[in-house]
Amino acid sequence: MEFQLEPYIRSIPDFPKPGIVFRDVTTLLKDPSAMTEAVRRLAAPYREKGIEKVVCIESRGFILGAALAVELHAGFIPVRKAGKLPGAVHREEYSLEYGTDVVEMHQDALRRGEKVLLHDDLLATGGTMSAAIRLVERSGGVIEGISFLIELDFLNGRPRLAPYTPISLIHYAAE
Amino acid sequence: MEFQLEPYIRSIPDFPKPGIVFRDVTTLLKDPSAMTEAVRRLAAPYREKGIEKVVCIESRGFILGAALAVELHAGFIPVRKAGKLPGAVHREEYSLEYGTDVVEMHQDALRRGEKVLLHDDLLATGGTMSAAIRLVERSGGVIEGISFLIELDFLNGRPRLAPYTPISLIHYAAE
Repeated sequence: MEFQLEPYIRSIPDFPKPGIVFRDVTTLLKDPSAMTEAVRRLAAPYREKGIEKVVCIESRGFILGAALAVELHAGFIPVRKAGKLPGAVHREEYSLEYGTDVVEMHQDALRRGEKVLLHDDLLATGGTMSAAIRLVERSGGVIEGISFLIELDFLNGRPRLAPYTPISLIHYAAE
Repeated sequence: MEFQLEPYIRSIPDFPKPGIVFRDVTTLLKDPSAMTEAVRRLAAPYREKGIEKVVCIESRGFILGAALAVELHAGFIPVRKAGKLPGAVHREEYSLEYGTDVVEMHQDALRRGEKVLLHDDLLATGGTMSAAIRLVERSGGVIEGISFLIELDFLNGRPRLAPYTPISLIHYAAE
């Protein structure tokens, strides 16, 4: 029987605020077999794509993203919140429920034409990932794929990532 | 000739403030051979230690720590800043240059007696890691090792981690 990842995700009601069901990945990450299986499945579609860099979003995206980079023998590149990266950066804003936030990537992280896989742990509204896409495009990276462990289908983030088609291992159709 | 990791670290003067030389690991992480070699060397002392969990400190500690967990076939456990973890947590304060900060770990992350390797990317004054040690001890974890990619010897953080003896791959004797 196929290994099921879903049972390793813990659902915590009313976090971070009332009415939200938080999908907690820490219960998957602490199980070595589940974590190894998640990395294997995230890597599988990209093994023959010549991925050179895995660009990962701070901070939960760093976890499986780093393991994915090693698995694909690609370099790891962080996209971080404002002011964290020490070198010269590109910046992109994205909108939140109230206001905006900023993510940054080192200007010299990518060489033009490098093949990139983007990764984060969870696709919600897609705001952060769409900003990360713009960062990669500004640096001349070629986006070969976008991967998530979890996708919250009901928040409809997927169209915001067009023309790219993300791959998510676990889907939640409703809250 | 042995693979040298040091040349992959970039030194950035006056970040985050004048007089500080920031040791930037992103230039190592983006090189697949250097990253793989770093993970191999971080894992080497612990391969026969039966490590069950790698406890990693947000957020740069997540990167090599996650790859290390997969390499050792151990579970990954995050130590995070206040308010980020959705379940019931243990909290520990630690002192900063001005004031204090807090780190948290899920109360059910570890089982009593589990063998733990702690990881962060850089040992400076040791404040965050000493708080992480207390979190693991409160949960009954048995600390088998503490590893860092970089240690700033001149900040003298090592004695603060006693009775544990950390292993660091790269040392800077002076600023």
